[in-house]
Amino acid sequence: MFSHTFYKGNEMETLKKYVSVKDEEHFYHQGAVELLIFNFLLILTILTIWLFKNHRFRFLHETGGAMLYGLVMGLIIRYVTKSPDVESGTVYECEKLKSGPSTLLINITNQVYEYQYKREISHHNVNGHQGNAMLQKMTFDPSIFFNILLPPIIFHAGYSLKKRHFFRNLGSILTYAFLGTAISCIVIGLIMYGFVKAMVHIGQLKQWEFHFTDCLFFGSLMSATDPVTVLAIFHELNVDTDLYTLLFGESVLNDAVAIVLTHSISIYSPKENPNAFDAAAFFQSVGNFLGIFAGSFAMGSSYAVVTALLTKFTKLCEFPMLETGLFFLLSWSAFLSAEAAGLTGIVAVLFCGVTQAHYTYNNLSPDSKMRTKQLFEFMNFLAENVIFCYMGLALFTFQNHIFNPLFIFGALMAIFVARASNIYPLSFLLNLGRKQKIPRTFQHMMMFSGLRGAIAFALAIRDTDSQPKQMMFTTALLMVFFTVWVFGGGTTAMLTWLQIRVGVDPDEDLKARAASQSAPNLDKNTTKAESAWLFRIWYGFDHKYLKPLLTHAGPPLTSTLPEWCNPVARLLTSPRAYGDQLKDGDTVYIINNDELTENYESSAHIPVPAQDSTASIQATGKEDIQEGDLGLGGYKLQLQHTAGQPQKNSLA
Amino acid sequence: MFSHTFYKGNEMETLKKYVSVKDEEHFYHQGAVELLIFNFLLILTILTIWLFKNHRFRFLHETGGAMLYGLVMGLIIRYVTKSPDVESGTVYECEKLKSGPSTLLINITNQVYEYQYKREISHHNVNGHQGNAMLQKMTFDPSIFFNILLPPIIFHAGYSLKKRHFFRNLGSILTYAFLGTAISCIVIGLIMYGFVKAMVHIGQLKQWEFHFTDCLFFGSLMSATDPVTVLAIFHELNVDTDLYTLLFGESVLNDAVAIVLTHSISIYSPKENPNAFDAAAFFQSVGNFLGIFAGSFAMGSSYAVVTALLTKFTKLCEFPMLETGLFFLLSWSAFLSAEAAGLTGIVAVLFCGVTQAHYTYNNLSPDSKMRTKQLFEFMNFLAENVIFCYMGLALFTFQNHIFNPLFIFGALMAIFVARASNIYPLSFLLNLGRKQKIPRTFQHMMMFSGLRGAIAFALAIRDTDSQPKQMMFTTALLMVFFTVWVFGGGTTAMLTWLQIRVGVDPDEDLKARAASQSAPNLDKNTTKAESAWLFRIWYGFDHKYLKPLLTHAGPPLTSTLPEWCNPVARLLTSPRAYGDQLKDGDTVYIINNDELTENYESSAHIPVPAQDSTASIQATGKEDIQEGDLGLGGYKLQLQHTAGQPQKNSLA
Repeated sequence: MFSHTFYKGNEMETLKKYVSVKDEEHFYHQGAVELLIFNFLLILTILTIWLFKNHRFRFLHETGGAMLYGLVMGLIIRYVTKSPDVESGTVYECEKLKSGPSTLLINITNQVYEYQYKREISHHNVNGHQGNAMLQKMTFDPSIFFNILLPPIIFHAGYSLKKRHFFRNLGSILTYAFLGTAISCIVIGLIMYGFVKAMVHIGQLKQWEFHFTDCLFFGSLMSATDPVTVLAIFHELNVDTDLYTLLFGESVLNDAVAIVLTHSISIYSPKENPNAFDAAAFFQSVGNFLGIFAGSFAMGSSYAVVTALLTKFTKLCEFPMLETGLFFLLSWSAFLSAEAAGLTGIVAVLFCGVTQAHYTYNNLSPDSKMRTKQLFEFMNFLAENVIFCYMGLALFTFQNHIFNPLFIFGALMAIFVARASNIYPLSFLLNLGRKQKIPRTFQHMMMFSGLRGAIAFALAIRDTDSQPKQMMFTTALLMVFFTVWVFGGGTTAMLTWLQIRVGVDPDEDLKARAASQSAPNLDKNTTKAESAWLFRIWYGFDHKYLKPLLTHAGPPLTSTLPEWCNPVARLLTSPRAYGDQLKDGDTVYIINNDELTENYESSAHIPVPAQDSTASIQATGKEDIQEGDLGLGGYKLQLQHTAGQPQKNSLA
Repeated sequence: MFSHTFYKGNEMETLKKYVSVKDEEHFYHQGAVELLIFNFLLILTILTIWLFKNHRFRFLHETGGAMLYGLVMGLIIRYVTKSPDVESGTVYECEKLKSGPSTLLINITNQVYEYQYKREISHHNVNGHQGNAMLQKMTFDPSIFFNILLPPIIFHAGYSLKKRHFFRNLGSILTYAFLGTAISCIVIGLIMYGFVKAMVHIGQLKQWEFHFTDCLFFGSLMSATDPVTVLAIFHELNVDTDLYTLLFGESVLNDAVAIVLTHSISIYSPKENPNAFDAAAFFQSVGNFLGIFAGSFAMGSSYAVVTALLTKFTKLCEFPMLETGLFFLLSWSAFLSAEAAGLTGIVAVLFCGVTQAHYTYNNLSPDSKMRTKQLFEFMNFLAENVIFCYMGLALFTFQNHIFNPLFIFGALMAIFVARASNIYPLSFLLNLGRKQKIPRTFQHMMMFSGLRGAIAFALAIRDTDSQPKQMMFTTALLMVFFTVWVFGGGTTAMLTWLQIRVGVDPDEDLKARAASQSAPNLDKNTTKAESAWLFRIWYGFDHKYLKPLLTHAGPPLTSTLPEWCNPVARLLTSPRAYGDQLKDGDTVYIINNDELTENYESSAHIPVPAQDSTASIQATGKEDIQEGDLGLGGYKLQLQHTAGQPQKNSLA
């Protein structure tokens, strides 16, 4: 896991055999010590956070705490431990080699040693290697972030997405995530380019190869917002559901967009002058972006669909452990397959999570539902804290930091301006179309919640070879520190100042809104969600074809598909779906039926297309249909037989 | 995680900057492909196992299946993929280097490359490196086994140990585990030494440094039994609880003993002739063994005690996620600390698991109880399958196999003879002391269940530098294959043949025994467990001091400790413990009280020491007190108020 290193003196040659086992042991202990340091940091973080939570002290989230402890530990490792490895830093010549092989066998004083290729180093970085051996060992391979730590975090975000709220605000979320991230990227890129030009002009910066594309690269990686701290506080305080959904949805999708954007920019290579605009290369990058995004989306969803089909058509649910195992492995495979195919695993695993929650989750045994939920929650918790802890460490343990105060100041300004030019203009445009406006206070809160976190860090650490990249890494790291501590810590104060309502019980909220909706003096249509048409089309298709195909629920495919498909439809429809039809409300899927009935009643003024009445597609009239989310709420709902009392909520 | 390698041609030099990102990508994809292969193997395994389970086909356990698929995949990788890395295998000279540094910087055609120290290679292994690059990449670092994969398996074994049954058979289990493993090690060592001598004699084996200590080393690593397959079938078929406990207890402790034994033997270094007996070195090894074992035990228990105290004295249980996280991290820290201190992490984590289950588990919130249980169950499941899958792979992907038919035949014979000389004589001796004899059929079944598994493999792969070690590794691997497939597959047949009763419902068993116990025509004392005195002393101490100190249960320390300790005792006793005293039976700890009352009634003929009547130490009269094990059974028991009906079970 860590980059193990291993010291041997000249005594090796004489002792050989009996020593080898001891050295082997020593080797394991080294790995253990490093992992132990992380463990202790995390334990400290947990205890501190418990203390804070116990005293309702909300200025430091666990991620902020993890970062703080990481920082202190980094400081200790850097300045307290000694540097026993004096030899590193020396560059050896080897004339026989013409290229760097993956494994190098070297004969040193008649002993053959095996060396493994790690990376290519720029000449200017060679001196940085004279650092502490402990520092080197505390340094992760960046692939650990992308292959091990990020997938569970992103999957969990997708898996725990409150679908109903998400889909109702889909239009706004997509606008913020796609358009907003692009705006943010360009604005940061432009500002930074201005700063770099100015710095070169005043002699602060040597004329490296700091092109406009590098600035855009920085812009794209800094556009990945990660308001984990803010969301945790929102969750704890039960902040307004719409604000929560907008922010959560934006941050989840925005990560995906920023990652693909960064990738596309990094492979944008204009033929001639790197500062000049090359239309062909630009469109190729745009094409790349779309291709990678769509491909990753398809890859992620496919794995989820396979999981849904497997859990539907096998009786795997009799063995919850096998089911959970399969679910876990297939979801991770979505990530790995996308990576292996040159797509973006993070995007794939995100959409895999959303699809798994939407379809597969319904097929799982109750035991597996709980297991998968708790497993990913736990992995998310651990991975998040490890990453933030590591970020704290990295400030002191990373060897090639380049602190440039002007660049850092520029970046700080840039991310503010970029966030503002993302949120305010887009909110204005969205409010033109939205029936339920996004209030000013929400906009300020969203502006304030533009924290940077794990993704920005992971994107920045992926490439730290050249000096511009090192400067970007250092700056990105400092932005993470600043935003997490300052904005994260100020969330509660900001909420109070903006007078955003907290303590919203989703159930109460639902009832209150339903009541205000049925009051005759209000415009009947005020609560129509802005993404109605998008949602309606999708809902109809999903309800008529996808749900019946992938889960045990919904109308049988035999009734929704054209007649000539009947043989196939009969094969693919779960016997339980027919039961649904007959009983007119299976307890397990009551959420859907309930919803449908409600929608049907409250949106009766919308022209009803002449279609199967069960497969209603006018699912927009009701504002706060309670989410059948992944928590225990879902279980509770499953026990209700509300088929006979469709207006229960509205009557309250 | 994997040993990443990375190919670069000469075009690198010209393209430099823009290519670097792409190569970086390529690098990640490599890691992804390898992980993906593992994922697919595991998914296939799960699906196959489901099919088998669905058809009640018990000849292949999931571990056997994982191994089979691993084998097939290894075959494909070995013979289908090509070998693009022609350069490896060449040894380069570097006269300037006097010893192998941990990080080597090499200037190759004006580019500096960083290489990382991997290991020292014997000259005779250099040719083996001309193999396939894919093979190399599919090879784990052995430290992955010890730091990542084994701890969850071993911890789970400790955490899910049925304490009551375990402690009742403690004497027998300890005998099998300590004495039995030592016998097994020596017998295998002697037989192998004979074989090696004979092979040298007939010229089959060159006179390497194959000393008696090497044979003993092989003996110790082959003494680690791992009847995971057998136990899974036992569990499924509900085989007699005593047989299950004996086998499970033996295999769990035996792993710990074998690991420490292997370590002690590997550092046994007689001064002069390695074949001669050096008493000083021998006693040093014995001392090492005892020291390491005791140290690891202490380390593991300490962490569990710290966890118990933390969960008792903080209100962490209000935040199950933090609680679970702390539990997980502290348990893993027990492992890592032991490793870092030069002790044996596996032993530490085993006893940590047992102690966590005994004390900490009682302090956890219901949510965390479930979470920790399911988390470790899941990790155990995954880790086990990964290891067995990897074992299958290793047969074809490991580069330096030495297949020696005679040695393999010798080993096969040796493990049989060793198992027989462990089980039969020790059972005979134990039966002299046991009131409830171990029947012949149980002995045969235990003999038959001497499977080799993960630990033997992990110990063997830890050192594969010299040729004897390579031969041992190959042989150990084949023994695992043979025993898992043949014995694992034959378990059901063997159970039928030996007419061992299956389908034992622990509850029914309990009632039946209680009934037979109360029948007047039977000897009142037949069911007295053989480890009565050991158990009694331990139980008294545990109940009077440890439980009250570490959990919320038991009599208050103020009543069990001498009076002058009162101030401290009051501080350390949970307020709930006083409640216990007053209510005479807190629902949460009813298991203990129930037990106590029962014991008091059925063992009234044993002289009762003049002590606090609550802190009864005569806890041996009853045979099958139902275990408050970690499953849902524990929850059920918590709901019973049996204080007023102590003889409920006996009356059935």
